[in-house]
Amino acid sequence: MIYYNSKNWHRAIFLVHRSDTFRALVPYLLLMLLYSTGVVYAEKTLLHLPPDSFLRNTPTMHTLLGFAISMLLVFRTNTAYDRWWEGRKLWGSLVNNSRNLALKLAAMLPEADGGARVFFRQAIPLYAQVLQKHLLKDTTRFALDEGAHPELPDLDRAQHGPNKVAESLYAKVYALHREGLLSGEQLILLNGELSAFTDVCGACERIKNTPIPYSYSAFIKKFIFIYVATLPFGFTFTLSYYTVPVTLFIFYVLASLELIAEEIEDPFGHDTNDLPMQKMADNIRGNVEGILR
Amino acid sequence: MIYYNSKNWHRAIFLVHRSDTFRALVPYLLLMLLYSTGVVYAEKTLLHLPPDSFLRNTPTMHTLLGFAISMLLVFRTNTAYDRWWEGRKLWGSLVNNSRNLALKLAAMLPEADGGARVFFRQAIPLYAQVLQKHLLKDTTRFALDEGAHPELPDLDRAQHGPNKVAESLYAKVYALHREGLLSGEQLILLNGELSAFTDVCGACERIKNTPIPYSYSAFIKKFIFIYVATLPFGFTFTLSYYTVPVTLFIFYVLASLELIAEEIEDPFGHDTNDLPMQKMADNIRGNVEGILR
Amino acid sequence: MIYYNSKNWHRAIFLVHRSDTFRALVPYLLLMLLYSTGVVYAEKTLLHLPPDSFLRNTPTMHTLLGFAISMLLVFRTNTAYDRWWEGRKLWGSLVNNSRNLALKLAAMLPEADGGARVFFRQAIPLYAQVLQKHLLKDTTRFALDEGAHPELPDLDRAQHGPNKVAESLYAKVYALHREGLLSGEQLILLNGELSAFTDVCGACERIKNTPIPYSYSAFIKKFIFIYVATLPFGFTFTLSYYTVPVTLFIFYVLASLELIAEEIEDPFGHDTNDLPMQKMADNIRGNVEGILR
Amino acid sequence: MIYYNSKNWHRAIFLVHRSDTFRALVPYLLLMLLYSTGVVYAEKTLLHLPPDSFLRNTPTMHTLLGFAISMLLVFRTNTAYDRWWEGRKLWGSLVNNSRNLALKLAAMLPEADGGARVFFRQAIPLYAQVLQKHLLKDTTRFALDEGAHPELPDLDRAQHGPNKVAESLYAKVYALHREGLLSGEQLILLNGELSAFTDVCGACERIKNTPIPYSYSAFIKKFIFIYVATLPFGFTFTLSYYTVPVTLFIFYVLASLELIAEEIEDPFGHDTNDLPMQKMADNIRGNVEGILR
Amino acid sequence: MIYYNSKNWHRAIFLVHRSDTFRALVPYLLLMLLYSTGVVYAEKTLLHLPPDSFLRNTPTMHTLLGFAISMLLVFRTNTAYDRWWEGRKLWGSLVNNSRNLALKLAAMLPEADGGARVFFRQAIPLYAQVLQKHLLKDTTRFALDEGAHPELPDLDRAQHGPNKVAESLYAKVYALHREGLLSGEQLILLNGELSAFTDVCGACERIKNTPIPYSYSAFIKKFIFIYVATLPFGFTFTLSYYTVPVTLFIFYVLASLELIAEEIEDPFGHDTNDLPMQKMADNIRGNVEGILR
Repeated sequence: MIYYNSKNWHRAIFLVHRSDTFRALVPYLLLMLLYSTGVVYAEKTLLHLPPDSFLRNTPTMHTLLGFAISMLLVFRTNTAYDRWWEGRKLWGSLVNNSRNLALKLAAMLPEADGGARVFFRQAIPLYAQVLQKHLLKDTTRFALDEGAHPELPDLDRAQHGPNKVAESLYAKVYALHREGLLSGEQLILLNGELSAFTDVCGACERIKNTPIPYSYSAFIKKFIFIYVATLPFGFTFTLSYYTVPVTLFIFYVLASLELIAEEIEDPFGHDTNDLPMQKMADNIRGNVEGILR
Repeated sequence: MIYYNSKNWHRAIFLVHRSDTFRALVPYLLLMLLYSTGVVYAEKTLLHLPPDSFLRNTPTMHTLLGFAISMLLVFRTNTAYDRWWEGRKLWGSLVNNSRNLALKLAAMLPEADGGARVFFRQAIPLYAQVLQKHLLKDTTRFALDEGAHPELPDLDRAQHGPNKVAESLYAKVYALHREGLLSGEQLILLNGELSAFTDVCGACERIKNTPIPYSYSAFIKKFIFIYVATLPFGFTFTLSYYTVPVTLFIFYVLASLELIAEEIEDPFGHDTNDLPMQKMADNIRGNVEGILR
Repeated sequence: MIYYNSKNWHRAIFLVHRSDTFRALVPYLLLMLLYSTGVVYAEKTLLHLPPDSFLRNTPTMHTLLGFAISMLLVFRTNTAYDRWWEGRKLWGSLVNNSRNLALKLAAMLPEADGGARVFFRQAIPLYAQVLQKHLLKDTTRFALDEGAHPELPDLDRAQHGPNKVAESLYAKVYALHREGLLSGEQLILLNGELSAFTDVCGACERIKNTPIPYSYSAFIKKFIFIYVATLPFGFTFTLSYYTVPVTLFIFYVLASLELIAEEIEDPFGHDTNDLPMQKMADNIRGNVEGILR
Repeated sequence: MIYYNSKNWHRAIFLVHRSDTFRALVPYLLLMLLYSTGVVYAEKTLLHLPPDSFLRNTPTMHTLLGFAISMLLVFRTNTAYDRWWEGRKLWGSLVNNSRNLALKLAAMLPEADGGARVFFRQAIPLYAQVLQKHLLKDTTRFALDEGAHPELPDLDRAQHGPNKVAESLYAKVYALHREGLLSGEQLILLNGELSAFTDVCGACERIKNTPIPYSYSAFIKKFIFIYVATLPFGFTFTLSYYTVPVTLFIFYVLASLELIAEEIEDPFGHDTNDLPMQKMADNIRGNVEGILR
Repeated sequence: MIYYNSKNWHRAIFLVHRSDTFRALVPYLLLMLLYSTGVVYAEKTLLHLPPDSFLRNTPTMHTLLGFAISMLLVFRTNTAYDRWWEGRKLWGSLVNNSRNLALKLAAMLPEADGGARVFFRQAIPLYAQVLQKHLLKDTTRFALDEGAHPELPDLDRAQHGPNKVAESLYAKVYALHREGLLSGEQLILLNGELSAFTDVCGACERIKNTPIPYSYSAFIKKFIFIYVATLPFGFTFTLSYYTVPVTLFIFYVLASLELIAEEIEDPFGHDTNDLPMQKMADNIRGNVEGILR
């Protein structure tokens, strides 16, 4: 993830960072350049369409639908942003619960705890570590896919890493209870944090394995494609070769919105804007070790 | 459910998946093709309307309302998406609570548990299994309908499957408490998960048996129909036979938004984009068996 | 409430159900028909306004504000829908809590419970029954109104039905505790459900007795009225008598959005789209009797 | 607060209630009447601007920004409505928690409670009463203001009324615990309601002392002002003296949205649409006295 | 933070407060003034473009995208406002939890508490104080940044101030439990408030160290820049030198929305509209000292 100074307009406008949609769009912008130049050339020079051809009025359609496409894309971006932000909140919750669990155990456990402090100092940060690996796996991504996955032979029988860690945490806590080091009320006090780990894991899996419905996604791409591809037909008459930059800019705007949405709707991956899970897991380790020292 | 690579534009634009709105709309697009061709032919050739007919200006109406219809449909899609996503969250919560319940019981129950582990290994995943069946039943769908349902004679006296499973879970937990295998505090620790099952079930039923108000739904369809049907009247004057593709595309966009909304607003069914409840129930079984082994 | 097949376009478009906004608007559409015909006739035939009258350009205003009015109405409908959906969620929560309370009591109470099962089998469903009656009363609706209500002499001293039922539920639970049939921990286990009843009741009362601010509501109606009433002045010049259907359709769309909002913003009443409280109360009774048998 | 019949269009359109934005805007509408008449007169009669003056095309700007201003104001109104509705929810939560606390104490306290019933019958409703007074005070409103407030010499040292009441409630509950009238588990049962009072108070203070950021608010007003003030310049050419009613109506719509937002964004005051805190506090008293009788 | 009278239009319109976007934009408005004057001069006087140049029609592009840019910016502002308001809610939660913790301890602790009251009177307000310092530190801001920070050599090993305070609070509470001054149930009663501190801290860190994705932010700035920079090309033909004020106003509106968003999206800093953390921390101290006196 990049932390940036949002008030630096110069950098945002004139520099093209590797996560910039502009960079990703360059090849498509070139294609669009060829296509729109071709359309204008064909209509003006090859076909000699008369200036009052009915084709001239097709932009009426683009005006009527311009609203729908903008709105759809802005909503699309915001839905994707909500998923990204929910992912961030979940990992934030993991941080909070790891800290609180460590804080409570540090205060509850007696001096002579038979190695319990050492155990939790390792096991609590392990959850975040294992969850990160789990979310990057293909078996997690395709967990709900209806298609066959011969390349993932163990999709159904996959071991669930985070559950293993949760199991060992629960087991240790209840063992300490049986040994009399933790009272029944203290089990209740630790319950919220222990359950929260599994809740965070399940919610991250949900974001990972459930993209927005395919028919929605496919419709938006089809809509952008037809909308932009038909722009030059009518524009030729009123804009001549200025049609080319105008079409390019409109394409840049609409496609960028879709690209941003694609990049952020799954926040658990290796895209530039994806969440820095490794860094957060490291911070959790640092915090827990600072508390349970 | 289909897991897809949202960055694959080629597939989204040029392939027509069976869940694509385009496929569902083909017959209506053909009807619209005939209708709009007919209108243009009638106005131009049969009626010889003069080019300055007042009919020429009716698209003013479409411009004024173009905004309203786009906005309404985008909101409609987003409301439907919220229902779909809430459904997914509820099943995610079922996953989390099944896992946490299994994790806690695995840690709480003594070695000699008189078969309790075996019981829960079967009963916990059973809830998801039974809930899935319950949500697909007609008696669940029509539970709040005011109409008569002679085809469902047992609508009112229907056995409630998920409640039966919950009953047996509660009964077993309290029996273990009476036998002294679970303490009073441990009942409190299990309370959240046990109640959550019934809460998830009730919330899924709500989404299933309460569609958006009928007057809202009927209004949107009437609006789309009149809006699109009146488009060719004025377009003929400025677009001639180009009216046909323009009308078709506008119809495609507006109807697709409504179709997507219809498909996803009830996520518990057999549509392509509906939630993979069977798969999730299987995953729960796998997880619980992995924990309570 | 009507459960309908949202994929049935034919029925939605061509049939006019009794809850359809079209039916409610018929008299106003007739008035608008007379009015707009009158305006066109006056401008064209009586006043012989010249075709370049400045009045011709007044639709500029409608274009500039067309966006604001559409947006306002779509937001209005969505706010109303949120209230309706919140109402449904609250009753769903009542269902869940009734079921969970029954499930817990069924598991907790010993065989020899001195009639406790029988008591709860009647008292739990009674809450929903009494709440329904309570929400339909005028004393509930006007609970926060600043005006005088001579027709409701007992507005301030009104007995609060749901509180009475809650009182008897709490009293019974604590009596069972005193008799030793329920432990202190079990009181904690029942606490969530018992409090939830009162929370649901208070939230339903909030939706019932607090409509959206009057100045907002009055502004929207004034805005629609002036907007539609001034439409024909300028349209006459470009649409002649086509002004009439165009104005009617625009009026139909804008007024329908407001009508739908009015109908669903108070979900506790006797409108067609209002929540089927009686049916839900019956379902609760059926569920509870099935559990506490 | 006014409870009104939202289906009464006649009253909403033709009557001007004292809370109506129309009434508040009358003086400004008169000013705008003079101003726009002046502009039209100046351009047409004094300056004799030619009909093809470039000024004629300035409404292009209003079209491009018409969307932004409408959207901004609708969002503004909705954000304000969210604050108002949150305020209502908070007081609803106060009602629920007061009732639940009374219900629980009524069931928990033994017959011989040494005056505890009498104490709570007075102290619980007192919280709402004191909170209402607290929210109307200037010291609450300016609690976070960075400016100097010489007129409020005790701003920093102000006694916090609601905290005093909460203190006495807590003290009584724990005293009863020490006397053995309430068990440890019963303290846990009362905890939610007791904490909720302070949470409600803090959230109401937040809404009261934190208006939306000043730069946002100032920008919206500047935007409306410049937008409306420049409208007549170009309209004169196409609308002549019809410019006056058109400008007035546009101003009425935009300013009304801002006025409604201003009125409802702080729901704790003496505006007509503000929440009826006194009435709600009275209802709480009535409810609690009905329960703890 | 500034508390202002939102009903004072005069002040908002005619005064330019230091937090006003207008002030921040003055240099850019001057640049835009030069630029747009230059473009008009070049097109009219230097190049003598014919009045029917195709360049004349480029504003078609601005109309088609005008909707997208307005919508994007309004959504941007609202997303930023949500972050700001969430920040305010978190500090409100800190206030509530500090008060409730103090209220409970005041009621729980016996007269002879061995200095516990004195301890908590200092330690509870300390959390807010330390959290404020923590949020203003660079190590907090860059905690998740992927870049190298040689200027912050201790970024990874940074001591976590709020955790230290939480540790001492937990330690004291459990020490009192071991001394028998607090029972096991009372630990449960204090649990919610103690965990809440860490949850608030983690959520504030999240807002601080996770700005909206860089590609989103960079795209919006690029979009505004190109949109405004291309405005004068076509406007020259219809507006001549009126192009200059029109372009300036459009730039003012679009850039203001982005500026407001930038200022409020990180509410923990030293901007004028940032949250008055110092003041809130002082209020917490005052409240806690008033309760634990």
